[in-house]
Amino acid sequence: MSWKRSERLIDMTNYLLNHPRDLISLTFFSERYQAAKSSISEDLTILKEIFDLQGIGKLVTIPGASGGVKYYVKVKQDLVKPFVADLCQLIAEPDRLLPGGYLYLADIVGNPMIMDQVGRMFASKFCDEPIDAVMTVATKGIPLAYATARFLNVPVVIVRKDAKITEGSTVSINYVTGSSKRIQTMLLAKKSLKEGSRVLIVDDFMKAGGTIRGMISLLDEFQASYAGIAVLVESEEVEDRLVDQYISIVKLSNVDVQEKRISVHEGNYFTK
Amino acid sequence: MSWKRSERLIDMTNYLLNHPRDLISLTFFSERYQAAKSSISEDLTILKEIFDLQGIGKLVTIPGASGGVKYYVKVKQDLVKPFVADLCQLIAEPDRLLPGGYLYLADIVGNPMIMDQVGRMFASKFCDEPIDAVMTVATKGIPLAYATARFLNVPVVIVRKDAKITEGSTVSINYVTGSSKRIQTMLLAKKSLKEGSRVLIVDDFMKAGGTIRGMISLLDEFQASYAGIAVLVESEEVEDRLVDQYISIVKLSNVDVQEKRISVHEGNYFTK
Repeated sequence: MSWKRSERLIDMTNYLLNHPRDLISLTFFSERYQAAKSSISEDLTILKEIFDLQGIGKLVTIPGASGGVKYYVKVKQDLVKPFVADLCQLIAEPDRLLPGGYLYLADIVGNPMIMDQVGRMFASKFCDEPIDAVMTVATKGIPLAYATARFLNVPVVIVRKDAKITEGSTVSINYVTGSSKRIQTMLLAKKSLKEGSRVLIVDDFMKAGGTIRGMISLLDEFQASYAGIAVLVESEEVEDRLVDQYISIVKLSNVDVQEKRISVHEGNYFTK
Repeated sequence: MSWKRSERLIDMTNYLLNHPRDLISLTFFSERYQAAKSSISEDLTILKEIFDLQGIGKLVTIPGASGGVKYYVKVKQDLVKPFVADLCQLIAEPDRLLPGGYLYLADIVGNPMIMDQVGRMFASKFCDEPIDAVMTVATKGIPLAYATARFLNVPVVIVRKDAKITEGSTVSINYVTGSSKRIQTMLLAKKSLKEGSRVLIVDDFMKAGGTIRGMISLLDEFQASYAGIAVLVESEEVEDRLVDQYISIVKLSNVDVQEKRISVHEGNYFTK
């Protein structure tokens, strides 16, 4: 089959979206569509323009014999702002408040379209950095970690608070929870993270940051480091937070469990 | 801005991929691109052909004033067969075997590209059915449930084996594990599933099927029903399986933990 431009553009869009941060050679596309490299180059110019305009991402062309094209997920601030405003409204529903100042977020975390959009925003923020894996702690951070990892094209590493037989041998650490000052354990399968990895830490909710500090300690055990910390919701009611470098999509303040009152605002995503 | 066909096709591809099973009116596209509906119809004809050819999915046009177009994820068997063959090889690595005939799958479950492809295959199988949610049990089933739910455009519901304060009130049931015949508990937040829902059950690994039977019992408590059961890996070494209607991508047999031997084949996905 000989491909027309219109047909190539459809398939190339799908292909690029499914291969973020992979280097794709012009030869690959040229052979896939039986088209001259000059035609493929012209296709890429059109793709680049629309990807940029619509906040789909950026296409970077690497010249030379070993070159090609790379697609990076990159959102546009003005296109995601309304999404964050809607999310704030959704989170502000007063019956989400649970004892201890926690929030019911299962419906939000269970919504793949919301997770996708937040994952896109996180990936966008770190698209230019070398990242080897996304790490989170079971259970509620998993969908978000997975969504982010998909757009960064790296594996997800899941830290647990209980040992499971199906993980093989594990490395464990103790950590102090920030809010209640209890000592807890978290563990990670030995096989699941390579030494020296650069890791993006993702979680759904951060209060004092004890859990995230725990993950950072665990990274030390693997001689790994963190490239960044990204949370969906941060709760502002904290005097000494254990973590200070992070991005958040949504920020809670004035949490009053008794009065069932809560203030919800944009997090620091757009300012950091 | 006035959009050219080539530009529209790129943006439409991205838009459709992000909105599976949503009804999108021609008016929406027509206004988005300042183009005549007849031009949009022609665009859709090209999209339909390439989506079908490349196993991206099927586009269904609904005629009439309240009509529009729906994108369904639909894979092509001959395009996913090599993926399943590669997956079998990956799973056949002998050092995956763990005590009790379990398998180390964390790297596979942690690979978003593999999860995506399996999610696509599951969604494809159930694309024509009314499904309200995808259900799984924490922890390892979550990435797969999420990937499947994304392609079906429905929420994920996560069953837990331990109560968490952040879930509010829960419904719990006791169930008997199929392999070891122990009694265990699983629970689900009351808010997380609507009465009468039709649910697709997804998990990473099935031996005797006790966990899946547990989820089915839990559905009863919510007056909900299951539309299907989909697992990544089934282990064949079972005399009386507790579940008989399911699809699987990969099937294990001849599991010999002592000899570190295992046979891995295609599951029933292509024959069911």
